[in-house]
This record gives sequence, structure tokens and C-alpha cells, in this order.
Amino acid sequence: MSQKPELCIGLIGSGFMGKAHVFGYATAQKVFDLPCRIRLHSLADVSDTAAQRAAQAFGFENATSDWRAMVADPAIHVINITAPNALHKEMALAAIAAGKHVHCEKPLAPLAADAREMAEAAERAGVKTQVGFNYLCNPMLRLAREMIAAGELGEIRGFRGLHAEDYMADASGPWSFRHDPAGGGALADLGSHALATAEFLCGPITRVMGDCVTMITERPDGTGRMRAVEVDDLARALVRFENGATGSVEANWIATGRKMQHDFEVYGTRGALAFSQERFNELHFFSVADARGRQGFRRIEAAPDHAPYGRFCVAPGHQIGFNDLKAIEVAEFVGAVAGQGPEMFSFRQGARVQTLVETIQRSSRDSAWIDVPPG
Amino acid sequence: MSQKPELCIGLIGSGFMGKAHVFGYATAQKVFDLPCRIRLHSLADVSDTAAQRAAQAFGFENATSDWRAMVADPAIHVINITAPNALHKEMALAAIAAGKHVHCEKPLAPLAADAREMAEAAERAGVKTQVGFNYLCNPMLRLAREMIAAGELGEIRGFRGLHAEDYMADASGPWSFRHDPAGGGALADLGSHALATAEFLCGPITRVMGDCVTMITERPDGTGRMRAVEVDDLARALVRFENGATGSVEANWIATGRKMQHDFEVYGTRGALAFSQERFNELHFFSVADARGRQGFRRIEAAPDHAPYGRFCVAPGHQIGFNDLKAIEVAEFVGAVAGQGPEMFSFRQGARVQTLVETIQRSSRDSAWIDVPPG
Amino acid sequence: MSQKPELCIGLIGSGFMGKAHVFGYATAQKVFDLPCRIRLHSLADVSDTAAQRAAQAFGFENATSDWRAMVADPAIHVINITAPNALHKEMALAAIAAGKHVHCEKPLAPLAADAREMAEAAERAGVKTQVGFNYLCNPMLRLAREMIAAGELGEIRGFRGLHAEDYMADASGPWSFRHDPAGGGALADLGSHALATAEFLCGPITRVMGDCVTMITERPDGTGRMRAVEVDDLARALVRFENGATGSVEANWIATGRKMQHDFEVYGTRGALAFSQERFNELHFFSVADARGRQGFRRIEAAPDHAPYGRFCVAPGHQIGFNDLKAIEVAEFVGAVAGQGPEMFSFRQGARVQTLVETIQRSSRDSAWIDVPPG
Amino acid sequence: MSQKPELCIGLIGSGFMGKAHVFGYATAQKVFDLPCRIRLHSLADVSDTAAQRAAQAFGFENATSDWRAMVADPAIHVINITAPNALHKEMALAAIAAGKHVHCEKPLAPLAADAREMAEAAERAGVKTQVGFNYLCNPMLRLAREMIAAGELGEIRGFRGLHAEDYMADASGPWSFRHDPAGGGALADLGSHALATAEFLCGPITRVMGDCVTMITERPDGTGRMRAVEVDDLARALVRFENGATGSVEANWIATGRKMQHDFEVYGTRGALAFSQERFNELHFFSVADARGRQGFRRIEAAPDHAPYGRFCVAPGHQIGFNDLKAIEVAEFVGAVAGQGPEMFSFRQGARVQTLVETIQRSSRDSAWIDVPPG
Repeated sequence: MSQKPELCIGLIGSGFMGKAHVFGYATAQKVFDLPCRIRLHSLADVSDTAAQRAAQAFGFENATSDWRAMVADPAIHVINITAPNALHKEMALAAIAAGKHVHCEKPLAPLAADAREMAEAAERAGVKTQVGFNYLCNPMLRLAREMIAAGELGEIRGFRGLHAEDYMADASGPWSFRHDPAGGGALADLGSHALATAEFLCGPITRVMGDCVTMITERPDGTGRMRAVEVDDLARALVRFENGATGSVEANWIATGRKMQHDFEVYGTRGALAFSQERFNELHFFSVADARGRQGFRRIEAAPDHAPYGRFCVAPGHQIGFNDLKAIEVAEFVGAVAGQGPEMFSFRQGARVQTLVETIQRSSRDSAWIDVPPG
Repeated sequence: MSQKPELCIGLIGSGFMGKAHVFGYATAQKVFDLPCRIRLHSLADVSDTAAQRAAQAFGFENATSDWRAMVADPAIHVINITAPNALHKEMALAAIAAGKHVHCEKPLAPLAADAREMAEAAERAGVKTQVGFNYLCNPMLRLAREMIAAGELGEIRGFRGLHAEDYMADASGPWSFRHDPAGGGALADLGSHALATAEFLCGPITRVMGDCVTMITERPDGTGRMRAVEVDDLARALVRFENGATGSVEANWIATGRKMQHDFEVYGTRGALAFSQERFNELHFFSVADARGRQGFRRIEAAPDHAPYGRFCVAPGHQIGFNDLKAIEVAEFVGAVAGQGPEMFSFRQGARVQTLVETIQRSSRDSAWIDVPPG
Repeated sequence: MSQKPELCIGLIGSGFMGKAHVFGYATAQKVFDLPCRIRLHSLADVSDTAAQRAAQAFGFENATSDWRAMVADPAIHVINITAPNALHKEMALAAIAAGKHVHCEKPLAPLAADAREMAEAAERAGVKTQVGFNYLCNPMLRLAREMIAAGELGEIRGFRGLHAEDYMADASGPWSFRHDPAGGGALADLGSHALATAEFLCGPITRVMGDCVTMITERPDGTGRMRAVEVDDLARALVRFENGATGSVEANWIATGRKMQHDFEVYGTRGALAFSQERFNELHFFSVADARGRQGFRRIEAAPDHAPYGRFCVAPGHQIGFNDLKAIEVAEFVGAVAGQGPEMFSFRQGARVQTLVETIQRSSRDSAWIDVPPG
Repeated sequence: MSQKPELCIGLIGSGFMGKAHVFGYATAQKVFDLPCRIRLHSLADVSDTAAQRAAQAFGFENATSDWRAMVADPAIHVINITAPNALHKEMALAAIAAGKHVHCEKPLAPLAADAREMAEAAERAGVKTQVGFNYLCNPMLRLAREMIAAGELGEIRGFRGLHAEDYMADASGPWSFRHDPAGGGALADLGSHALATAEFLCGPITRVMGDCVTMITERPDGTGRMRAVEVDDLARALVRFENGATGSVEANWIATGRKMQHDFEVYGTRGALAFSQERFNELHFFSVADARGRQGFRRIEAAPDHAPYGRFCVAPGHQIGFNDLKAIEVAEFVGAVAGQGPEMFSFRQGARVQTLVETIQRSSRDSAWIDVPPG
């Protein structure tokens, strides 16, 4: 038992997502029988002071303001990147060059080309990678994927997906990095989740018609002046899947009243699924195989039957929380690093989502259907 | 009280919708204080036998196989048309020419140009008209419209509407008139409702990007052969509203498991509404004016506060049914005929919906955004 | 077809429930293929003026202030009683004595003994009777009953039923006849529905422990003085069923926010049902026969599979309304009168509900479990 | 920062609940700014081997099969008891005698007298105690309690609470310690939660009428023989609250299909609340203060406004899970130990719940209303 190898972690960044990674490691170690012993080795932040404070709070052994040095440290096996998006590429490439496995927050990079470059570098180097698409770690989404793959819905015909929240609904809210074209917009920030879910369930999207809209065209910066907002508040796309299904996707960060409407419905020839992240321990399933007069959408509650839910709760109905999704994400990556299974959502897949986002944006600018580049 | 004028009705057709009109008159007379006494004067059907049988069953005084004669009968004030769609135009124009008010089932005509011609004829003749968009007669939809008009949601930014059912989901189901290009497709049949609702709530749609898809490309005709299906099973549109809002609409008749998903969500700067025809005696309302920590979508149940619900039930929560919506539709038209109020959904508005349908179809063929012709 | 016999109706009372009966006849004639032609023969009310006004509004041929004369009129076949509760007995006994079939609103009589006397008189006279328990006419309740009877839930173990509304929640609301001990209280007014549903689904209740509570002990009468309220606002009962199941029932007319919480859950060894009148076109069904990992409460929507829903709507999901329940009730009674089927909810069953109410009230006064008298 | 005192934990038991406590400490340390540094000092289990294995898996420094020695260890500050119920008393009294703070799983002891003795011992010794009523740690339950306390519902009139699951629904499931009268039954196991919630929200219950039922009267023991079950599968109680409200409580472990129906509804003069543990990140609130025609139950989603939700998720709608409730419970106790706040649910309160359970059981045996002993 004590023979388990040690896995030394180097974390870059100590903000909300950095904390979430640390929560993830803490929970994953307790909940899963990880193949490695996790050692929180080093934490890098913008200054020595910040790094030391965070290292102590989070339980890391070492702190540094020099992420390059940390990335090069041969004692470290895994680099977790939770720094600002604009820095992801440089950090990840350095880590990959040093032979580290890399777990990076989304988006991998503002540009798909950069994300692809990162994926290719990782593949050449033979290191494991993961991008933080935690909603996909939900046992109910995996159940959905398995049910679809097993043909329980028959052939898939239609998909309707969305991710709507309201954190940008107030037009008087300040301009932030998220309003910078490099930073994203609703499609990059939220739509990326809806797109990842769409392909997770229904396979590759081959063609899109995008519609990206800026509803709040300027916001106050800190100085009392208004600054133009160039990114989308609301984006919609019509899509085609390789399997012949068609669908739509919406991203919306000005959906007043919505806090976590990451929803989907999938319709097949023999059944359907409906899901809302607002109640993410449930999956609603309709089957034409049910007896006549007894058919209906059935509310399946998360249970030990739906791995890895049972790791968290031995009984059905108890429910896992958002942070547990992150723990599953972390456990998946540790497993992949240890060679126990495939990467769950690698840089290649992260780059793929960026490609979808960019293709939709381009389609919106061109007002035309565009083929999604493969890969 | 007995001074109420008589309103003599002539009904063409005695199928499901004909029956629904008769139910509507029966209920409307009991529930509303109509300005006229309704007299079921004459019923026309394809043969004398069919007409006589239906007239007796429905309580009409006269029966005929000659709708032209009935339409010309000076004793009749209102013509209700529930014959096959392809005949609507000829019948309506004849009725209008004879100075009758006309209540016609949807769609007014397969082609928008024909529908517009019908609307213009009616306007020139000064007769009242109505198209059977019964979902709009729901007190909760009227509440939604009033709330939006009163600014309770602030400025409207986004709309998401759909109408999905599954009555065409079975690919082995037979080819029918609904699969004929003149007959419609999902967009014409169901999407028309979603489009009518969209404009009822948010005002004119000015621009669309359509995507009409045929998923089941052939169906068995009665002879054992397969016949090509050329209409859409599934149609989606991205839309722009005159008021600056953007949105999407979906029509789907192969949505396995869905029986009546005529749903919408409207997002404004100050609030939001969510509705499903699956539970059409409810409207869900979010307001940013609610106290902090106490906000949430609130389920408003239909009540006497929401006219004309109180006509049907003196207490809240009792609920009206589908046929009651038809009774409201009938009562509205009788009121308009009697000069008590504006037409609720005239031929002009019916033609408008056809225009939207055609514009979306054209946009889909052209793969391009198209301006919706005004009017 | 024209051979159908005529059924002449005499209605006593023209208030809300009188109107509901008339709506019921109007709809039933259109929707069902009734075995008789309904003729609204006579209407009796407190004065000639009131009776004449109502007869005209409702479409009755004759009006009278003398209900005794009307009841004795040999031309009339059925008497519908919607007069104040205190008069039900005298009227019903007179009608029965005259050989009429009687359809009486609930409660049959304030005292169970009186109700039983009415039931016995009807049985001796061989006339058909019905009490207005319209919620039982819901196709989804019939489905529930059939599923239970067919063993789809296995053996029944537990029942939880309630009927809560809030129309008496405001303590400043005026004293009314409903606050008179003879008039009722929440148990008699609403609990009677919950009790009827309990026995409709699970069979006879054999033993009860009641708890009737008056929360608002006085209310203003019209003169500015306060008048004592002696009836229950809130009543609960623990119950035993003959089939071995146990359960509970609640009646509540001060349940702030509730408009129609006539709900139940039934648990068996193999399945369960959950229902709410708030969404009465749905029945939720759980079955242990569903595959592992795919189990859940499934939302069955009312459909033509669930008779007599198809009489109202040819397609699923359209929904029936409260008044349609009354139409089903009327149609059932007309069918029973014509000898087409058993009485749906006869005076005997109405008396039974009164017995249950009284037994619970007595149990509450005695603070003891009491056997429910049989019958 | 490093000045934080150390808090040394000794855990007895390493089963499911032992693991849950460890998860709780792990998460609490990451999520909360605890006033102490937690040190997992020692773990005691039935054998040295079991203890060592668990200590290693859970991260404890020491392992022992001698819980008495561990409890006496002066280095340890807190004893967490997750051993079988029958041992709670002896262990807790020994720990209290040694001056330790004690966090004990529910039920404190099979008999209320024992539980009271434990509470008194702790109070005399001046140590802090806590019983594991984790559902009360839900931010939405705290919100409910605060809203009630602040008068947002007006005066409380009625309460309906229940806790139903189905883990004992299968009659062929084996006899276990839970079927032993000392072990409990549904009322002790699940009803204790419903009772704790009832008093948490509405204050002391003063009087009860219980109804405890054994539906499955025998179960197979391991040897192929049937063993009598003497505990309740299903228990119901009618209750009175000190504040004048009345209510009911149900406990049910044979509710086929229910996994976590720990639900309540509270009705006041000005508003109401409805909650289900099946969707425990939501609280439904009705207020008569809402505008006419705009009233309805509103779905409040857990958000940073509802402490301590914000400790887990910085944004609304993300949701906490069952294990997070346990982390809140642990953090509360560490805070109480550090003198930062009152005990959240002390032995005194645990004893109180046992008193309620026993009073209901006695009432059921006596078929009589019984006053609940104070305290």
C-alpha cells in the first residue's frame, strides 16, 4: 500500500480556480483510491509574498514567484495552470518542454491555433494533459453518454444545448478582462461548455452557422469613462453533427435570473434525454420501449449505479456538489498520468473546443455556414 | 337582455377542428356574456350525407354539400373554415366577397402571398377575420404580454421559443398531406405557433436565418411504396426583433417524448419569464426587484386575476384546458364582430406568420440572413 | 340516431355550482356520445325573478321559485341540486320520492346520518344518484386506480393524501356559512376530497385518529362584531385501510400560497405513484421493474390512452381543464341513468365520505383511534 | 497565521460515517478559515490491523484497537465517535470524563435517558459536543430558519415534515442491527431528521400523537431462518408546537422510489416555505407581500447570499453536495470548540430528538396524545 508512487504537484495561480484545484486534490485523495500519493510540492504566484501566503493556506511545501523555475524543477511531475488565460500557452509549453504533465484551466488559449500548438507539443512530448471541463465529470452526463452510445435512444436526430447565466446582465457592471476580445465573451466562456457537452454526447460537429451578438456595447472602466465591449453577450449557433443529427447551441451571460442553465435535450429515434445543470444530480429519460399509457420522462436520480457517484455517497439521492465534479476531474487526470486510463479531456479536446468557438465566431462575422476543421 | 342580436354561423368542415369550433361556441356561450346569441345555422361538408350527419351531431339547423351556396346565404353572418388548408383561400375569398366575417383555421394558406391577398380582401371588404392561433388565447400568455408591455422585465434582450412534439417521430408512419410541400412541414405546422408567440410577446421579427431539415426522407404511402418527404421535420431559426432583442425559434415534430413543448423564455434587463405549454396554467417570473437572497423564478398559477380565466373558474388553481382556449378564441371573435374590441389575431396577422415561415424557408435554402418583409 | 331518448333536467340553484352543472351538460353533449338528448327543462331558484334570469342565461325552458313543484313535475327525469348544503336532504328526499334521479353537490348533508338516510331512500326507490366529487373524474386518477388494481404497484403499503388551499388564510376575512358547524370546516369542505381519493385508490379506511384544529378562532361578521369560529381550519388524520396499508390525510384551508394542493402519494411493494392537482394532467409513476440505473419517477402526461381524455383532445399533452372534469361527471351520471354503467359516485359513497369526516371529528374530540363504521 | 492552535482529533470507527468525518475535516480545512490547525492524531478501530489500515487510508498518525487508551491520551482534544450506536454512551462518557470535546454520530444513544445523561455529563464537564445532524447544516435550511425568525412568513400556523426513503422496501432484504429495537426503526433513523428539522424551524414540539407501524414483520437472518422485526417501518405523528402551530411528521423507510424525501412545508399568516432534500440547493418561498396577480412560490437557488454557501462556490447555482454538509458540520464544531460560537447541535439537542422519538413511540403504544417532556 505504501508502495504507491508519489505525484508531486506544482500549481501556478492561487485565485478561485487555483483553490478549486486544491479542493479537488484534497477531496480526490479522500474519495478515490488514487494510484499515487499526492504531494502539494510547490506553488507559484505573482510575488513571493502572495505565493507564500497561498502556499501556507493551501498546504504547499514551497512557494515561488518564479513559475519558470518551478516548471523546470525535476522533483515536480504535474503542473496545474490556473493563471490568466493569456499566459496559459507560454506556461504550458514550458511545462511540456520540461516533460511535465499539465492540467490547465479553460480556455487553453484565446486562439485555437495556439491551443492546437499546445496539444501538438504535448503529444510530441508524450505527456498527459487535461483541460478543466468539469461539467463533463458529472456522473449523470456520463450516464447520458453511455446511454446514447448503447443505443438506448436509437439513432440521434436532434440536440438542443445551452449555457445561460446572468453575471453580465447588469449593464452598469464594470469592464473586465472578460470583455476583451482576447478574453472571450459568452461563447468562449460559457458556450465552450455547451459545445463540449454537445460533442461529448453526440460526437463531432461538422458545420456551424453562428450568431454572436453584443447587447451591452460599452461598460464603465475604473476611471469613470465608458469602454467599448467587443465580445458577444449572447451567441447562438445552428449545428450539424457527423452522425447526421442537427442541433443548436446557445451561450448567454445576460440571461437575467439564470445562474446555471447548462441544459441539454437529445432526441433519438427510440428515446430522449433532458438535463439541466440547475438540478445536475438528475437525468430525465424517455423511452418508447415503455408500455403504452405508461410512457413519460423519468427522473433518474444520481446513485451508486452511476460511477463514480458511489465514491462520494454510498446511497442514492444524497447528491454531489460542484466541487465534487472538480475532484472527479483531478482523479481522472491522476489516473491518466498513472497510465490507468485515457485522458478524459486532453489539450487536443480543449483545442477542439476552441476551434468550434472560433468557427462559430467566424461564421457569425461571415453570416455563412462554415465547415468545422477536423481535429 | 333578449335584445341581443343573433349571430348566425356557417361552418365548413366537420373534422377535428370543426368539432373544436363547435365546442368553442358551446363553451363560449355558457362562459362568456357574449354580445350576440349564437345560432348554429348551417354546416357544409363534402357530401350531403356527411353534412347532415355532422349537422345533427353538432346541432346545426341546416346541412349542405354546397359550401358556395352556404357562403352566399344572406342569413349567415360568420363563416368558420375548417376545411383542408388548400381550400382556405377560395372559401375565404368567397365568404369575404359575400360580406361575411371569417374565422379560419391555420394556416391561412400555404403561400404567404395568398394569405396576404386574403387579408387585403377582408380589409377592403371591412369584414372581421380571425385565424385559429389558440395558444395565444391562454390567460398566462396574455399576462406575459402585459408584463412585458408594462416594462416589468425592463428592456427585452433575448427570446428562446420552440414548439416540439413527436407525432412524426416514427419513421414508419405513413406519408400524409402534411408531408406535401403545400401542406407544410414542422415549421409551418408547429413553428407557426412559436413564431406567433414570439411576435405576440416581443413585437416584429425583422431578420431571420433559417435552417430547415428533413430527417425522415421517405415514408410509406398506402400502396406499399415509399414516397419522398420534402418538408422539414425540424426547423430552427435565428432571429432579430425590431426592439433590438435577438432570439431563436425551433419547430420539431420528431422530438421523441414531447407532446406539447410549446415553450418560451424571455429575458429582459430587469426580469425574465419562462413558460411551457406542458403546464400552461403557470407562468414563471423572475424579477431583479425582489429582495437580495430572496430572488428566484416564481411560479404564478392561473387565477381570476388573469382575465379571462375567472370566466371559467372562480378560484385560482383550478385550471383551464385546451378546449377552453378555443372557447376564448371564439369569444374574442364574436366580440370583434360585434364591435366590442379589436380583432385578436386577424388574417393580417395570419398572413404575417406565413410570411415569417416562408422567409425562414427561403433563408434556409439560401443559407443567408434575410430581412422579413414588413407587414 | 334521432331515436335517442330525451332526458329532462331540473336544476335547483343557479350559483357557481349550478353554473358548473350547466357547463357540464353543455360540454358533455358535445364531447361524449351521450345515450340521451339532454333537455334543460326547468330551473328553480329562490325567487321567480332570480329563476327567470338564470333560466334565460343558462338556457332552461322554464323557471320557478317553487322547487317542490318542479321536483314533482312528471316531465322531469333528473334533479340537479346545487342549493345550500342545509337544504340538500329535503330536496333530495322529495326528488327521490317523486322517482327522480338525483345529482347533488357535496356534501350530501351536514350529518352522515342524514346522508345515509338519503342513500337508503334512493336505493329503495331504485333511482340513480351521484355526488359531485369531480376530482375523481380525472383520467389520471382513474389511471392511478387501474394501475393499483392491476397490481402495478404490488401490494399497497402507504398513502399520503392532502387537500390544502388558502382561501381562509386571511384572519380578517368575514365569518360565513362555511364557518358554521353545520356547514363544515376544512375537513368537510376539502378533506372530503382527500378522503374520497384515498378510498377511491386504496379501498376502505377502517380506523382513524383525527386531529381537527381551529387556528382562527373568530372572524368579523357583517356588523363589525367578532363571531366565534367553531369549525376546523386544519385537520389531520392517521388512517388504516382494510387492505393493510396505513396512511395520513390532511385538510387545510389556511395553507398560504396553496391554491389546489389536492395531492397524494401511494407506495406499494413494487412501485409508487405521486400526483398533484396543481398539475392534474400528469401522474408520476415509479416502478421497480425498470432497469437498474434507469429507475425514476416518470411523468405520464394525459393522453388518449387514458379514457376519457381522448373525448376532449385527440392528441396527448393538450390537457383538460377543471370544467372538463365536471363534464365527465355529468356524462357518467347520464350513462348511469341510461343503464350504461354503474353509478360513479353515488349517494351511498357520498354518505360514506360524510361518515369518514364525522368519525375523524369524533376521534379528534375523543383523542382516540376509532373504528370507521362500515358502509 | 502560523499562530493558529493545533486541534488533535481522535476518531473511533472507520466505516461509512468515519470516512464522512474525515472527508468533512479535509474539506472544512480547505474551504473554511478554521480557527485551528486540524491534526488527524489517532484512529481507533476493533482490531490493530483494521485501525492501521484505516489510519493509513485516512491519514491519521496513530492507530489503536484500544479506544479507551486513545480517549485518555492527553494529546488529543476532540473525539469523533462513529462506532455502533450501542457503544456511543460508554465512549462519549469516557471522553467527556477525560475532558475531551465530543462529536458523536446520531443517534446519541438508543434511550433518551442515556442521551440526557451524556448531555448532562458534557455540560458538567464544560466540554463542547455535537451530534451529526448534517441536513440542518444546509444553507437553505438556515435561510428558512432565518426567514421564519425574521417574520417573513408571519406567524407560523402549520408544518408538514417527512423523511422517506426506500432502502428497507424490499421485504426479502436481510435482518440487520437496524431492525433491533435498540437500533431503531424508521422513526429513530429517519424521523429523527424530520423532528430535528421541525424544531429547528418552528421551535419546541410540546405534544404528540404517534403512530408507529411495522409493515414487514419478519426478515431472513443469515442462517436461512426468519427473524421477527419489532421496529417501525413507517411512523407518523401529529404534533403541537409551543408557538401555537400544529403539524405532522412522517418517517418511512419503505417508500418505494424515494431516495431522499426529507421534505417540509411551513405555512404562516404571511407566507410559506416548501423544501425537498431531493433538490436541496433550492428553497421555495411564497409571500403575500408580492403584487396581486404576480404571487407564486419562488424557487430561491443557493447562492453566496446564503452563508456559508459562498465558502464552497463563489457564484450562485453551482450547488453544494452531501459531503459539503458534513464539512459545514465539522467546521461548526471546530468553531464551537475554539469558542467562536455556540454549539450548533449539541448533545442536549441530540437528547432532545431522542426524547421526541421516544415520546412518539410511547404515544403510539398508548394510542394517546402525550406531552413531550421539556428539555
